[in-house]
Amino acid sequence: MKPITSELLAQEMGAMNIPNIASATIRQIVSLASRLEHHLGDSFVHLEMGNPGLPPAEIGIEAERDALTQGIAGQYPNIAGIPQLKDNGSRFLKAFLDIDIPPRCIVPTVGSMQGTFTLFLLLGQRLPGRDTILFIDPGFPAQHNQVKLLGLNQESLDLYDCRGKALEARLDEILSKGHVSAILYSNPNNPAWTNLTHEEYGIIARMAEKHDIIVVEDNAYLGMDFRQRYGIPYREPFVPTIAKYTSRCILLVSASKIFSYAGQRIAMVCMSPEVADRVYPFFEQFYEMPTFGDAYIYGVLYCASSGTAHSSQYAFAEMMKAAVEGKLDFVDTSKEYGRRAAIAKRMFLENGFHIVYDRDGDQPISDGFFFTVGYRDMKGDELQKELLRYGISTISLPSTGSRQQGVRICVSMLCDEGSFTRLSDRLETFALDHSSEKTRRAELQTI
Amino acid sequence: MKPITSELLAQEMGAMNIPNIASATIRQIVSLASRLEHHLGDSFVHLEMGNPGLPPAEIGIEAERDALTQGIAGQYPNIAGIPQLKDNGSRFLKAFLDIDIPPRCIVPTVGSMQGTFTLFLLLGQRLPGRDTILFIDPGFPAQHNQVKLLGLNQESLDLYDCRGKALEARLDEILSKGHVSAILYSNPNNPAWTNLTHEEYGIIARMAEKHDIIVVEDNAYLGMDFRQRYGIPYREPFVPTIAKYTSRCILLVSASKIFSYAGQRIAMVCMSPEVADRVYPFFEQFYEMPTFGDAYIYGVLYCASSGTAHSSQYAFAEMMKAAVEGKLDFVDTSKEYGRRAAIAKRMFLENGFHIVYDRDGDQPISDGFFFTVGYRDMKGDELQKELLRYGISTISLPSTGSRQQGVRICVSMLCDEGSFTRLSDRLETFALDHSSEKTRRAELQTI
Repeated sequence: MKPITSELLAQEMGAMNIPNIASATIRQIVSLASRLEHHLGDSFVHLEMGNPGLPPAEIGIEAERDALTQGIAGQYPNIAGIPQLKDNGSRFLKAFLDIDIPPRCIVPTVGSMQGTFTLFLLLGQRLPGRDTILFIDPGFPAQHNQVKLLGLNQESLDLYDCRGKALEARLDEILSKGHVSAILYSNPNNPAWTNLTHEEYGIIARMAEKHDIIVVEDNAYLGMDFRQRYGIPYREPFVPTIAKYTSRCILLVSASKIFSYAGQRIAMVCMSPEVADRVYPFFEQFYEMPTFGDAYIYGVLYCASSGTAHSSQYAFAEMMKAAVEGKLDFVDTSKEYGRRAAIAKRMFLENGFHIVYDRDGDQPISDGFFFTVGYRDMKGDELQKELLRYGISTISLPSTGSRQQGVRICVSMLCDEGSFTRLSDRLETFALDHSSEKTRRAELQTI
Repeated sequence: MKPITSELLAQEMGAMNIPNIASATIRQIVSLASRLEHHLGDSFVHLEMGNPGLPPAEIGIEAERDALTQGIAGQYPNIAGIPQLKDNGSRFLKAFLDIDIPPRCIVPTVGSMQGTFTLFLLLGQRLPGRDTILFIDPGFPAQHNQVKLLGLNQESLDLYDCRGKALEARLDEILSKGHVSAILYSNPNNPAWTNLTHEEYGIIARMAEKHDIIVVEDNAYLGMDFRQRYGIPYREPFVPTIAKYTSRCILLVSASKIFSYAGQRIAMVCMSPEVADRVYPFFEQFYEMPTFGDAYIYGVLYCASSGTAHSSQYAFAEMMKAAVEGKLDFVDTSKEYGRRAAIAKRMFLENGFHIVYDRDGDQPISDGFFFTVGYRDMKGDELQKELLRYGISTISLPSTGSRQQGVRICVSMLCDEGSFTRLSDRLETFALDHSSEKTRRAELQTI
């Protein structure tokens, strides 16, 4: 293969008004890749985008089709969610995480994107002077953008260099300043696929209680730490969660990856009763609704979209019900991502790349939806651009809040042998071109 | 019938933490009514809530079911909207409003609620110092809440006392202060069902151009001014719109009422190309996307929910296509609201009520989804509470930004003869109790 020249790449970025690759959105990268495809004369390997990459759960589709036939398109959905969703959401959390969150504390959102967007807004209001969200990074770039868009402040802590005990000192230092309202992280982590350890959960819970923080846990990839066999209803091991360590928490559970149902934009926000029922003077005054739960549902979510599409709620409810009843093994289904990650990792490693975030405590990380790679001493955005020239599209680690250099690899779009072959071939060419002085010489000639 | 006592009403409001009926949300009023129903011993007449009240369009349901079968639940929807929606949206605007908005300027939202919420955010950013939305009131209370929630400022102008020429002086006075970014109104108007006249459109357009304002036109009830026969594709009369008077505008078109499709939360934001393509220094710096259209779609909407449920987009696209092709006469279908309004208006008038907003220029207003009534010199919140006692639930005019006294009547839930009979009986009892000294005496006795 013949890589795209740096000049052509720069030119296409210019045409798309992308001055800086590291701050482009994932959607812009996808568009850029499709423009470059034209020059490459062959399909890109898309490792940037987290489309589910597995067929959506049939049970959901059937439930949704039935609900539509019943005429639910004609009535506004209850903002607080249909009872089936709330009930089955509660059962789902009990069956797979072994926690008790009552139906009244569960509310559907238009994907977890709406969940975090609307929660950040409320979390930024709840206590005077607490206008900051602390991210345990690396993370999902869009959530950083959400905080910025809402006019709130953010801090970021890179988990890379503060695993285990080191986390406590860093958290305590930041939280002592008194400006943080909430901590957000995803587990398994997007993009590093790290999982918090028992010790780390304990630390986060302790710090949340000491500093009156609400912990928002994004469970987008719930159960996908394949080192353990999660996902058998009401049987250990249960999926680890902060809710086992503190009641000061909100969990986000989305159907997008768990049930490969991203197209219908359906997720749920699950508040611990302590979080939902806490009364705030500001909410009383601003919303005339004193509790966090009411202010969130009837104050914020009502304003954001007047609820979530009726039929998608039926789909999510039925998929969770089937999972709880042992009829839909969502963890087993998503193991396919682990298989793909194992193959892709090997290809990267064989061509001189290294895994950036590689361990949880003393264990190697799980294979799953994402992993992170670096190449020698290349900067993240430099590596991202260089891979683009070879028809491989990724996002850079700095864009995820990481201080490490490298890129995020998402295996969801590696869905046939052709894409693995293309990936392997291109990485070999990349390695060949970068292993010698060849590249540097070629670059000199083009100046 | 025996009305609920004022004490019991006060007690139930207290139990629900509603100190002030005029600032309760519609959803709270619905909940309050269902608590009161218990005491009344009979069903309430629900005139407060704008549920469609007609069956959803079958064509939409079929399209949505088919799309689900095709597997679209598994893929993220394009944030900018599926091509079918954008194309048919553009054709729909041409066929019924006779305006040209290209598909690229049309984007789906999770109902027009998400449309206004996200637009307000961006409109509040576009120019330094322009942090205020001007409402031509009365209006939809939720939109006022949205502006407040976003931390923006608002001004309100009551159309009641500045129809026609008077509008120009009032607008010019407010806009000259230089803090307004956008004007919002709905046409036909929620709650007054007034329609702007040709003269008023001209004034709004002129003022928007003079003061660099963007006009946001909410077409939730598009075509439902039944004094004219709108809704025959590509044939006059076309539905009036500000887009005929100025290019400085954004139109909101929702499937909720037009196609009775509120349950699926689907609408579209239609930007004039001039609005979409205008470049702003702030957007360039904040989003790294200089145009209004890109900043809106990829900056704001992406953050708000990563797009709109895939299947609902197919439904909306097909319903608009059918309308454009003359296979779905949405205006004729919605005439049912006009029929109900005519009956309900007569019942109110026969029992001593009057229509508050009663004319457009020199013409009586149309019968439609809403109308407004007052009773003697009763204040709006007083009338709302008094009607609640008689099992009739409404919202007060002051809660809609109106300076007039009275309540909004929504006829959508008057869907069977039983509800008309209940309404008629209760209004008669209300009139009887309030026409004599009986009430005052009874009240004195309860003190």
